[in-house]
Amino acid sequence: MNVHVRPETGSIVKGERPGSRKVYVAGELFPDIRVPFREVPVHESAGEPPVTIYDPSGPYTDPNAVIDIEKGLARPREAWVVARGDVEEITPRQVKPEDNGGAAGRHLAPEFKATRKVYRAKAGACVTQLEYARKGIITPEMEYVAIRENLRREQSAPCVRDGEDFGASIPDFCTPEFVRSEVARGRAIIPANINHGEVEPMAIGRNFLVKINANIGNSAVLSSVADEVDKLVWATRWGADNVMDLSTGRNIHNIREWIVRNSPVPIGTVPIYQALEKVGGVAEDLTWEVYRDTLIEQAEQGVDYFTIHAGVRLPYIPLTAKRVTGIVSRGGSIMAKWCLSHHRENFLYEHFEDICEIMRAYDVSFSLGDGLRPGSIADANDAAQFAELDTLGELTQVAWKHGVQTMIEGPGHVPMHKIKANMDKQLKVCGEAPFYTLGPLTTDIAPGYDHITSGIGAAMIGWFGTAMLCYVTPKEHLGLPDREDVKTGVITYKIAAHAADLAKGHPGAQMWDDALSRARFQFRWEDQFNLGLDPETAREYHDESLPKEAHKTAHFCSMCGPKFCSMKITQDVREFAAGMAPNAIEQGMAEMSEKFRGMGGEIDVALKP
Amino acid sequence: MNVHVRPETGSIVKGERPGSRKVYVAGELFPDIRVPFREVPVHESAGEPPVTIYDPSGPYTDPNAVIDIEKGLARPREAWVVARGDVEEITPRQVKPEDNGGAAGRHLAPEFKATRKVYRAKAGACVTQLEYARKGIITPEMEYVAIRENLRREQSAPCVRDGEDFGASIPDFCTPEFVRSEVARGRAIIPANINHGEVEPMAIGRNFLVKINANIGNSAVLSSVADEVDKLVWATRWGADNVMDLSTGRNIHNIREWIVRNSPVPIGTVPIYQALEKVGGVAEDLTWEVYRDTLIEQAEQGVDYFTIHAGVRLPYIPLTAKRVTGIVSRGGSIMAKWCLSHHRENFLYEHFEDICEIMRAYDVSFSLGDGLRPGSIADANDAAQFAELDTLGELTQVAWKHGVQTMIEGPGHVPMHKIKANMDKQLKVCGEAPFYTLGPLTTDIAPGYDHITSGIGAAMIGWFGTAMLCYVTPKEHLGLPDREDVKTGVITYKIAAHAADLAKGHPGAQMWDDALSRARFQFRWEDQFNLGLDPETAREYHDESLPKEAHKTAHFCSMCGPKFCSMKITQDVREFAAGMAPNAIEQGMAEMSEKFRGMGGEIDVALKP
Repeated sequence: MNVHVRPETGSIVKGERPGSRKVYVAGELFPDIRVPFREVPVHESAGEPPVTIYDPSGPYTDPNAVIDIEKGLARPREAWVVARGDVEEITPRQVKPEDNGGAAGRHLAPEFKATRKVYRAKAGACVTQLEYARKGIITPEMEYVAIRENLRREQSAPCVRDGEDFGASIPDFCTPEFVRSEVARGRAIIPANINHGEVEPMAIGRNFLVKINANIGNSAVLSSVADEVDKLVWATRWGADNVMDLSTGRNIHNIREWIVRNSPVPIGTVPIYQALEKVGGVAEDLTWEVYRDTLIEQAEQGVDYFTIHAGVRLPYIPLTAKRVTGIVSRGGSIMAKWCLSHHRENFLYEHFEDICEIMRAYDVSFSLGDGLRPGSIADANDAAQFAELDTLGELTQVAWKHGVQTMIEGPGHVPMHKIKANMDKQLKVCGEAPFYTLGPLTTDIAPGYDHITSGIGAAMIGWFGTAMLCYVTPKEHLGLPDREDVKTGVITYKIAAHAADLAKGHPGAQMWDDALSRARFQFRWEDQFNLGLDPETAREYHDESLPKEAHKTAHFCSMCGPKFCSMKITQDVREFAAGMAPNAIEQGMAEMSEKFRGMGGEIDVALKP
Repeated sequence: MNVHVRPETGSIVKGERPGSRKVYVAGELFPDIRVPFREVPVHESAGEPPVTIYDPSGPYTDPNAVIDIEKGLARPREAWVVARGDVEEITPRQVKPEDNGGAAGRHLAPEFKATRKVYRAKAGACVTQLEYARKGIITPEMEYVAIRENLRREQSAPCVRDGEDFGASIPDFCTPEFVRSEVARGRAIIPANINHGEVEPMAIGRNFLVKINANIGNSAVLSSVADEVDKLVWATRWGADNVMDLSTGRNIHNIREWIVRNSPVPIGTVPIYQALEKVGGVAEDLTWEVYRDTLIEQAEQGVDYFTIHAGVRLPYIPLTAKRVTGIVSRGGSIMAKWCLSHHRENFLYEHFEDICEIMRAYDVSFSLGDGLRPGSIADANDAAQFAELDTLGELTQVAWKHGVQTMIEGPGHVPMHKIKANMDKQLKVCGEAPFYTLGPLTTDIAPGYDHITSGIGAAMIGWFGTAMLCYVTPKEHLGLPDREDVKTGVITYKIAAHAADLAKGHPGAQMWDDALSRARFQFRWEDQFNLGLDPETAREYHDESLPKEAHKTAHFCSMCGPKFCSMKITQDVREFAAGMAPNAIEQGMAEMSEKFRGMGGEIDVALKP
């Protein structure tokens, strides 16, 4: 059913975003690292420095970068990995027909042709960022992350920090040592497979900026290679920090290679999807051997984190029988079916330590899957969900024992009043390992608008401490997201993540809002557009009402018209007040105060300072 | 600049929403009242009753109603008003040229032709629902509201009520007496001008379903009469409970008459906008006399609530001077300019008791405006905002003394961690009078998406106790909303309001989510669409991926394809489990438990019930 179009470089959107400049900051410990930012200059009349914005879009937005998706991105990180001396080049596993679901001829997605070296840890070595951090080693990845998280705020005015962080420990300034210490204690991860030399390191942790993940991937029904690479680039252009390739059906291997080789952001997968394809879609036929082989296949490709549903344990499955929506996680339901069919415990749970051995040899991070997450408001926070979460807490300790970086997946569908309990329990039972939630959706009644039902929950749980928010698009529950849906999902989740950063009191957060609000108040229309998450849409909406160029410098807008502009009137008020004698207002206040006190009666005149 | 199109009945969307039926429930105390609901029947295979949904769309969605917007809607409520014996027909104020901004000839919007009687309280009488409630009288409006709020839940299974309501007092079942008692203590209002016989009574209060308001209105720059009536009908079709006419510029009087005569929902206005037009747009020239005349003009037309910025007091104005975005409320900035120009206290504050005298003679409710609300994250919860709120609390007591129904407007732009303080302070200083907030927007960085930045804040503050949420459309800050923007804004706010109802534990809320989730889980695609807030969009999204009719009964969807459908697998799991011996699962659990205990080591095997 797949219709493959040979990827064309020309279809990928490239170049700086309008109104933005790509800039880089070099490391101090590692002078060759170049940390990218998106810088938005404002009109000279403002007398303000440009605003520095976190930028996961990679070389695609660098006007000087040469992009050729047939060759993939450059791999600066490969040298850092090799320099550590603990990896060796290996002969990669041979690609087998079943890796692509037996697709052949015109049904086979094109192979990614450019060659590269494949690495694995030397025998017995643990090559994870967690292991280095515990040894007290600051890696280039850690300095990269520190610079990235700071948003050059050392250049800015003192930061507003009046948030409520619910026990997080966000520093005023983020140092490489702080990053190391957070990774060492498992409170943050830097998902970065040693075979993903193209990745620009980023951190997921409660004491860093809240991140977002976008899901892409074909399915058995639709989609093609070109579409998926395009969606990857498109999603990161709008701000996706991570991307999960959830492809199913045939051609999974080849599509993934195209994605990883062209991805500046960490790529996550759910290996059970491919393993199931390899056994013809029959869950009962899954075996540890097929699964293990799939993990190695994907680890060699450079996948940065694996969703592994090891917490869907046999005893928990009956707990879902009376649910309104049973088991809604794909991976979770596959494992549940396997467990019941064989009357055996989940083999991912039984082989968890074997899995750890593979993960640590490539620095693949765990994303411990919540296979029993609620699929409806009715099922939120139930016994099945929380039993699995307890198990994920146990598995976190096992992963940490093996030096494997770990984050924990969370729901799902949860009404607002039950959201915080999820975060509190996760922090407690998972030892502050990063939480990574899907939404949650705060109501079930709006198919077609679940980016919004879930954006509400995502903002809240991000505030409470979730480190990464998995986006939901308008097509959730209904169909596969297209390009426009991906953009809408990403922007909605950037809103949620930033609202969470603000509420947590992240020291780098409010600068952005303030810069935009000053532009708005001063009628710097172009600055307001450019500082927004989506300048094109903002400009288009403005121009629908007032298309003339002159109106972009006008001191009014279409909502109120020239007479009624409240911002214009406020400026008049300020000028008026400024032209008064120094104590005129105070005198006026005193007189009025006197007068109102004389009024007596029901009105208690309280003159505020 | 206005281009007027003579309203055509044909342009108004009429008829039942697809998949819904219009039904009515009669009163018991007042058998002639007919309370409308939208009923969504589900597929017979479900064996479930139809779902009853609150319906503010009026006769437009009644297939038996004859709609002629040139005549206006029927006025069943006029008889209830007259029957109370405390009003008299009056000779209405003559329409003056300045009521329409001096528009003439082809620039004058068409007059609404159909005649009606105009009423006012008999000399000295107070004809407000508050006054009746205090006297122990249950009015037809109160029984109407009680039936409406119940959503026929007496017919449903026991309700799930596990919310956190922060001290609200929502009863399991809503009686006319409960409505009376809530109105009597000022904790709810029923905005219903005696001259708005077309209105279908509704309540705004913390112990009722959370309501939403949609703003429409032309401005000096754009829009026409036909567009505004269409937007009114369109907004209520998607779920707007109230509509504010924020028209400015010329033709304000005539446009408003068309709107009120065709509106089944309460209409609110900001009279200062028209008053300012009458004095040529020069704020300094405003007088109490012009304002008073405008109140009477609008009260006679049947406007149900007035936003009145009486809390923008002279001494508070200097508190805004150092704000990032000064005063952003139109009405607030007009009054601030007036105060500073004259060096005098706000004349709305000084004449507040005079205003009460007018309001009580028509039962116009106060919406005490927050003229000093924050216009940016930086300005949230500042001294100016809270000083004004204290004053609104004082004025609430004055309004109540005069028997006038009152609600309080709230912000605006507020980061998540500062939202609850707004609600807590409002409840405290305003004696639990209903709170009516605009959003709040939880970040400033997303022009073009402020329905979402604000939907997050709206859901939260609704949960905390706000009674009505004023919508924000995607065009906020950028331009005037068109039809599509109105729909997006309304649906976003229905999501926020319903998420709030769920979180508060409203006994009528979760039935809807559960019905939709059961439909989803059972692959009743048509039911899932029809139960959603926007069936057309949900169906369209589904059909983009799987257009064939057969797929709407398929037990899979385009996201996962036939092999990977988690819901299908869960059903298999259930069937499998059901086919096992009664205690097979328990036996399996016991065996596994034994086995895992034997494993020992790092993994603490916790078998959950």
